[in-house]
Amino acid sequence: MEIGEIVLLKTEYMGKSREYVATVSYDSFHTDLGIIDMDILLDKEPGDTVTSHLNHEFHIRKLRTPDIFNHAKRTGAPMMPRDIGIIITNTGINKNDVVLDVGTGTGILAMYLGSVAKRVVTYESNEEFFKVSRKNINSLGSDNIELRHGNFVDEIEHINEQFDVITLDTVDAGKIVPYTVNLLRPGGYLAAYSPFFEQTKQIREAADNTNFIEVSTVECIERNISFTERGTRPASSRVGHTGFITIART
Amino acid sequence: MEIGEIVLLKTEYMGKSREYVATVSYDSFHTDLGIIDMDILLDKEPGDTVTSHLNHEFHIRKLRTPDIFNHAKRTGAPMMPRDIGIIITNTGINKNDVVLDVGTGTGILAMYLGSVAKRVVTYESNEEFFKVSRKNINSLGSDNIELRHGNFVDEIEHINEQFDVITLDTVDAGKIVPYTVNLLRPGGYLAAYSPFFEQTKQIREAADNTNFIEVSTVECIERNISFTERGTRPASSRVGHTGFITIART
Amino acid sequence: MEIGEIVLLKTEYMGKSREYVATVSYDSFHTDLGIIDMDILLDKEPGDTVTSHLNHEFHIRKLRTPDIFNHAKRTGAPMMPRDIGIIITNTGINKNDVVLDVGTGTGILAMYLGSVAKRVVTYESNEEFFKVSRKNINSLGSDNIELRHGNFVDEIEHINEQFDVITLDTVDAGKIVPYTVNLLRPGGYLAAYSPFFEQTKQIREAADNTNFIEVSTVECIERNISFTERGTRPASSRVGHTGFITIART
Amino acid sequence: MEIGEIVLLKTEYMGKSREYVATVSYDSFHTDLGIIDMDILLDKEPGDTVTSHLNHEFHIRKLRTPDIFNHAKRTGAPMMPRDIGIIITNTGINKNDVVLDVGTGTGILAMYLGSVAKRVVTYESNEEFFKVSRKNINSLGSDNIELRHGNFVDEIEHINEQFDVITLDTVDAGKIVPYTVNLLRPGGYLAAYSPFFEQTKQIREAADNTNFIEVSTVECIERNISFTERGTRPASSRVGHTGFITIART
Repeated sequence: MEIGEIVLLKTEYMGKSREYVATVSYDSFHTDLGIIDMDILLDKEPGDTVTSHLNHEFHIRKLRTPDIFNHAKRTGAPMMPRDIGIIITNTGINKNDVVLDVGTGTGILAMYLGSVAKRVVTYESNEEFFKVSRKNINSLGSDNIELRHGNFVDEIEHINEQFDVITLDTVDAGKIVPYTVNLLRPGGYLAAYSPFFEQTKQIREAADNTNFIEVSTVECIERNISFTERGTRPASSRVGHTGFITIART
Repeated sequence: MEIGEIVLLKTEYMGKSREYVATVSYDSFHTDLGIIDMDILLDKEPGDTVTSHLNHEFHIRKLRTPDIFNHAKRTGAPMMPRDIGIIITNTGINKNDVVLDVGTGTGILAMYLGSVAKRVVTYESNEEFFKVSRKNINSLGSDNIELRHGNFVDEIEHINEQFDVITLDTVDAGKIVPYTVNLLRPGGYLAAYSPFFEQTKQIREAADNTNFIEVSTVECIERNISFTERGTRPASSRVGHTGFITIART
Repeated sequence: MEIGEIVLLKTEYMGKSREYVATVSYDSFHTDLGIIDMDILLDKEPGDTVTSHLNHEFHIRKLRTPDIFNHAKRTGAPMMPRDIGIIITNTGINKNDVVLDVGTGTGILAMYLGSVAKRVVTYESNEEFFKVSRKNINSLGSDNIELRHGNFVDEIEHINEQFDVITLDTVDAGKIVPYTVNLLRPGGYLAAYSPFFEQTKQIREAADNTNFIEVSTVECIERNISFTERGTRPASSRVGHTGFITIART
Repeated sequence: MEIGEIVLLKTEYMGKSREYVATVSYDSFHTDLGIIDMDILLDKEPGDTVTSHLNHEFHIRKLRTPDIFNHAKRTGAPMMPRDIGIIITNTGINKNDVVLDVGTGTGILAMYLGSVAKRVVTYESNEEFFKVSRKNINSLGSDNIELRHGNFVDEIEHINEQFDVITLDTVDAGKIVPYTVNLLRPGGYLAAYSPFFEQTKQIREAADNTNFIEVSTVECIERNISFTERGTRPASSRVGHTGFITIART
């Protein structure tokens, strides 16, 4: 492995799984199960193990985006992978795309988008959210995400590029929709997320009034299926509403 | 635009939207609304219009993956975008990944994966499905998908690379699961799709017996939300079960 | 059987099931599979068969409420059995109850309520709906339902009894809620049904402003499970939203 | 009110609602908020209040079936009101019906059925469940429920009446189905409940092999809708699977 690579160190303690996100470097990494000299990983590959000074063994794993979802610092409820997935496939985000994301929040959506798209520009007006998302994005290794601090509508005159997809995850999405249409390439998509019906209605009305076409709103109810010796059944918990996703096209 | 680029030509006829997928070339493209000389598009950009010899006007759009989903030839029910989205985000498929896909079918999943990942290898044993998916993949322009005709389990000894993610969409997924674990990179993911409980149970049992970890099965119930003058409500139709997605990790 | 009893006559024709609702009487009953002298049923019991003059055989069945749901004339979409069931069990409607129902519609809800409760009073302001529901209620044999033609709010001063449960299935339910609280016995329930969010919100606001307690709103998503040789799965169709049910108590 | 009537006494303490189920009698009723002489209620009506010796005031409410659901002793997860509602309306249980219920459990289903039907016969083989359900049924005042202790299949030769509806809520429902068909009146219904797919499949296979007709299986996903100042949304918790309900007819 190389200096700067980010890894997941996975182990068990007292019968429970524990995970740490660490960077290959010449520094040492402190865990409650001992200190690890991170330069040892220069001679290792994912799948190998590394041992702390307390002789505790950790499996080295390549960091993947679901690990980022699990380990990022949170300032609020981030968008769930299922909803991010619906946005990606309903707008067709791909590795040639430049994506604009308004309302960075914790940065989870931006990091997922960054793992798929060529480049992501993301705006966050709240200073605390901006700082946390910057930390998340830097420490978890996304280098094609440009995080901007500021109010999107105020900054819009300074934006002089066009985007393939624009994503909105912010309380005032309905007000922002009209500003997005001219920033989208022909055939490009808008995807706006909201937990509430009232906000979703504002988004729909704004999209209809802004000459967006092919407007639709979906909700994904995800259920876990439980497999036990007693039998197979949809799990009786952990289901729930997250939000409504409105997709519109230019 | 350039020779070989694939575009969506969009128009209206008798009050209804019509779309055609065409390739920029020195050939002419025949529609029931007139013939279009495709080399005219060499001087055009997405967002421009082009006119047929019957003077009918078409909007030129960049082809995006949802267009591929809508226009691909079908040999059966393809996986739906929402389920593909859940696979992408729950396994973290990204532009550095090499993905193995068993059971090409119509090729929809492979083409979505190809739009996101670095490279996709996909196996189809049924000759008719193989031919249709080859036509889809060629005509819709995915150049990083390697489509192989053959039974995956028979061919497995010839596969000497490792994958970040393996996807299964085939009736006998339960039998294939044990063969996948050694083809996955450490920390890589298996995603197996099945419409039926019985098959899903076989997949789960195989995953548990093959030392996969973090095994879970989810189902996504997608609902359209309808906005009319009478009011806002979940749509009373077009909801429905598609399949169960089992995710497991090495 | 006795004169006046209503039966279901069930047969098969060309491989398909056919059902007729008929009344035991001294008249003859005309079907496209022949004429039946209905007084023959005076010597029959449910489970027996009766033969038409064309020698076609019909099974005699006791009419049950789901048959009423299937055979009643419709003026619009009636409330579905699942939603009626949720109203019955969440309000505890039982054979000692007197129930007020506002917005008779086709009369399906009233007939279900009449099959369970001691007495039902139901209001319909629309003349056509009133006529159809009267025909349904008379021909399908509910004798404890008092169907009144008129606008409930206008008529309210003439209502001088109290009810155990009041059900509302009408566009202006939000406006009616405040009038219901004084017609309910202590501990009695209001159940208001609406397909739309906007109406449901009006109902909630009215209930909160009228000192109703224990207010909640639920939606029931019913899925059919399909069992075939290929496997078991939630059916891919016939799922859908019907409406939101708001329950409140005095 | 009269001796023997069962009431709900409702009050608030420390800002929280508290409820007690008590019987009008010449005894005193002990609560942690004081002792109530229950014969005082002989001069009261539902809607009045009664005061404990500690001067704490309680509202007197008529007991309704949802109160029984909330206050009955539990030996396991009882069937939920929504599922009971679906059984009642899909089988058309009404005040003229005699219902057989196999697998009493806590007695919740039997008590709901008893509140609607003319008479209910219910079997429980487990002695502890039998005792708890007997206590529930006696103390909550259902006088048309005949609770029998014993294994239904063993006892079947002693059953010499016919039923309009038979309900099954027991692990071995699949084995019991064949015995029920001869106990049902023509046109009568079987309703079998199971949380698991495997059991539901056994129920279906048994129903198909026993000449039941019009067999269908449904699942009801109930969602709470949340109304707050921030907006309206399906609640993010308390959704979930309970069980599959199979309905079949003779």
